[in-house]
Amino acid sequence: MPYFDAASAAPLHPVAREALLAALDEGWADPARLYREGRRARLLLDAAREAAADAVGCRPDELTFTPSGTHAVHSGMFGVLAARRRIGRRLVHSAVEHSSVLHAAEVHAAAGGTVTEVPVDRTGRVAQAAVADALGDDTALVCLQSANHEVGTEQPVQEVAAHCREAGVPLLVDAAQSVPWGPVPGAWSVLTASAHKWGGPPGVGLLVVRKGTRFAPQGPLDERESGRSPGFGNLPAVVAAAAALRALRAAAESGPDEAARLRGLVERIRAGVPELVPDVEVVGDPVRRLPHLVTFSCLYVDGEALLHELDRAGFSVSSGSSCTSSTLTPSHVLRAMGVLSEGNVRVSLPYGTEAADVERFLTVLPEAVRSVRERFGVPAQEPSRGAAGTGEPAAEPAASGLVVDTLGRRCPVPVIELAKVIGEVPLGATVTVLSDDAAARQDIPAWCAMREQEYVGEEPAERGAAYVVRRRV
Amino acid sequence: MPYFDAASAAPLHPVAREALLAALDEGWADPARLYREGRRARLLLDAAREAAADAVGCRPDELTFTPSGTHAVHSGMFGVLAARRRIGRRLVHSAVEHSSVLHAAEVHAAAGGTVTEVPVDRTGRVAQAAVADALGDDTALVCLQSANHEVGTEQPVQEVAAHCREAGVPLLVDAAQSVPWGPVPGAWSVLTASAHKWGGPPGVGLLVVRKGTRFAPQGPLDERESGRSPGFGNLPAVVAAAAALRALRAAAESGPDEAARLRGLVERIRAGVPELVPDVEVVGDPVRRLPHLVTFSCLYVDGEALLHELDRAGFSVSSGSSCTSSTLTPSHVLRAMGVLSEGNVRVSLPYGTEAADVERFLTVLPEAVRSVRERFGVPAQEPSRGAAGTGEPAAEPAASGLVVDTLGRRCPVPVIELAKVIGEVPLGATVTVLSDDAAARQDIPAWCAMREQEYVGEEPAERGAAYVVRRRV
Repeated sequence: MPYFDAASAAPLHPVAREALLAALDEGWADPARLYREGRRARLLLDAAREAAADAVGCRPDELTFTPSGTHAVHSGMFGVLAARRRIGRRLVHSAVEHSSVLHAAEVHAAAGGTVTEVPVDRTGRVAQAAVADALGDDTALVCLQSANHEVGTEQPVQEVAAHCREAGVPLLVDAAQSVPWGPVPGAWSVLTASAHKWGGPPGVGLLVVRKGTRFAPQGPLDERESGRSPGFGNLPAVVAAAAALRALRAAAESGPDEAARLRGLVERIRAGVPELVPDVEVVGDPVRRLPHLVTFSCLYVDGEALLHELDRAGFSVSSGSSCTSSTLTPSHVLRAMGVLSEGNVRVSLPYGTEAADVERFLTVLPEAVRSVRERFGVPAQEPSRGAAGTGEPAAEPAASGLVVDTLGRRCPVPVIELAKVIGEVPLGATVTVLSDDAAARQDIPAWCAMREQEYVGEEPAERGAAYVVRRRV
Repeated sequence: MPYFDAASAAPLHPVAREALLAALDEGWADPARLYREGRRARLLLDAAREAAADAVGCRPDELTFTPSGTHAVHSGMFGVLAARRRIGRRLVHSAVEHSSVLHAAEVHAAAGGTVTEVPVDRTGRVAQAAVADALGDDTALVCLQSANHEVGTEQPVQEVAAHCREAGVPLLVDAAQSVPWGPVPGAWSVLTASAHKWGGPPGVGLLVVRKGTRFAPQGPLDERESGRSPGFGNLPAVVAAAAALRALRAAAESGPDEAARLRGLVERIRAGVPELVPDVEVVGDPVRRLPHLVTFSCLYVDGEALLHELDRAGFSVSSGSSCTSSTLTPSHVLRAMGVLSEGNVRVSLPYGTEAADVERFLTVLPEAVRSVRERFGVPAQEPSRGAAGTGEPAAEPAASGLVVDTLGRRCPVPVIELAKVIGEVPLGATVTVLSDDAAARQDIPAWCAMREQEYVGEEPAERGAAYVVRRRV
């Protein structure tokens, strides 16, 4: 049963399992104690810190273990923001950061801080110049992920780090997705990661604060972990996490190139999906990306229904579609990229994924998409472009008077209903879609781009919004 | 090799180990995901929550898993304090709470809140009336531990909870030490606990917030655990923690009474130590206390040296002496109780401790204490009381002019030097001890109480302080 959601959580690495078992016997005591069980625990903790530091490329005394990647991000951000409070209170981050960064930014803003969000292009990448432009005298911190967790796009971390260094501003790199694949190069100041993304157990995050970075831990005092992570440590999990990371690095140095192999499988999906499934948009940077992750969106498809179809067929994947989020809004990453969010599927391959499973996924996917579309009454063939209507472009832009009311109906219905009527709209005339679904704001323009129709804009409406589309083809 | 420090961390319960192994295979995925691995993880999480809730006596939806007991305390305190901010900003807590409570209180005070510390008596117990008196109109929260982690004294939680309920003030009970022994009775509002104290793995705390308690989680938003504990959960550890707690409860209901058995062993230590070791003070309430924990202090003994002696003899215990803390100050618990802090030993017996090991401890201890005292040049026999000096009480209180300079020397030296010279002081006259050691402030008065000498008080000195003692016997 292939599990293709390594970006959420990877299954435990066998080395981690073994290390965990050993540490449960040897490392359950308090490493701060002076008796033998405590000394034994301390030795294990010190060794784990050295191994993890070696793997991420820092000194052991720069590395703190936290209860999760989210804790590492929060502690890292607030620690730098507080230490640099007198210099300034501006926080700069990309629009596609992990929610842990965005939520910490909200707290910072609520406390009177300033937040500058740097936009991304359609591949999900920030322009390094845009980050550099956002660096003001009052900038306390820049946050940039090494690679995106939803679409796999790598960010220009090294270049941004150089800009930051020049400006004397610390850069925090959320490396949760990339650390399994190697250290993050460049002159970053703070780095965070999460062990359960690399086959470590849950319950372990990494917070690295480079020497020389001003840092003031926030929250109640605690002597453990240099005062940067309160509470009794999770030593068995820490030992297991470090062992798994060391094993990955050792395999990458001496064994076959697993990253390259997975990259090949992902390439197969990137190329295969658009051939096998009509009306699909593969998103994310095609080259500068994580080796194991690929994301695509399927027009006229309900993301949750598609996930269920794939689950029934034995494939575990995730989705950034609005219907799969508790807030019923599409993923902020897809929104920031301006790409289609409906029928979104993220495939992230764990270590050791077999090529045969990827092939089987490509066999199963088209039928899964087809059956979901059928359920939504999507015509197998859309009216061929330009075939209906007047056949003549209207000399003057005109409104067709056509209004498609999809109020109360969720993604992908608004886009499906638009597709159904576009053939009736005279070329050059407009059609208005009424929708109160959050995904429509993103998916109607995305549909227009895919179909070469013109998205005119959004108008206020009594309920929801009115999205105006001009037929061009 | 007997480990007698269960109050720091208990070894993993065999049931927890088994559950952990199973959950590593079945519960590594994200329980928020819809695919089969996620659903399986969700089932495990739900079952663990039900088991833990049952064991602490709450509803499953009132219970949140946190990364540690410390996280539970911090989240619980700040959640209530924020929600009741408009009512008032007074926090009331006992003087002997765990450091996690005290450090959160410091943050609260630094942010403009008010903190009232309720004193304890020589047994370490608060008077319920004193807590009731501290409840003002502006009281937002009361924090009271169920039992003390250093001396084992139980607090009158049920009575304090009744006062709080009457006053409409929520009570947070830090139940870290008592939860292994049973649910906390009474009308408390918030309860916290820590799994590694009951044989669960580290990495799991419990935060219970009773329905109807105003609660506003602080820090960055997170959808997990009702928004009360951010970050990817530590499911395998949570499953193991719940399994261990359930196993303890089942054993307590059907098996032999382990609490009563350990209470017997502790009784043996409480009675035996003062018989076997001269100049020992057993501290904590003799009756209303935890079943497995006993603490005593040995006059003229360096706590760290004694711990080393006991460790060499195969016994792992802890200490609240200043020399065993990184800050070189005695435990705030012993200080609040006003008892001797030097040569302090806490014995906390894990489940299944064998009676023979306790007997062996009682055999080893006297020699360990003797050898440490010898190293510090403590005379085997102190001058018998009243035998030296004038033999006649001075008619008028007078200063002997004797000054003992122990500046730069640490506990237990100041008290030892005082004991050495007291015989030379005329009855009714005073002797002054100069000391810059934090423990002297506590241990010189404690010595006076033990020796029936009069502690006159403390005077300012150029360096450290001058402690004045009047010879009475």
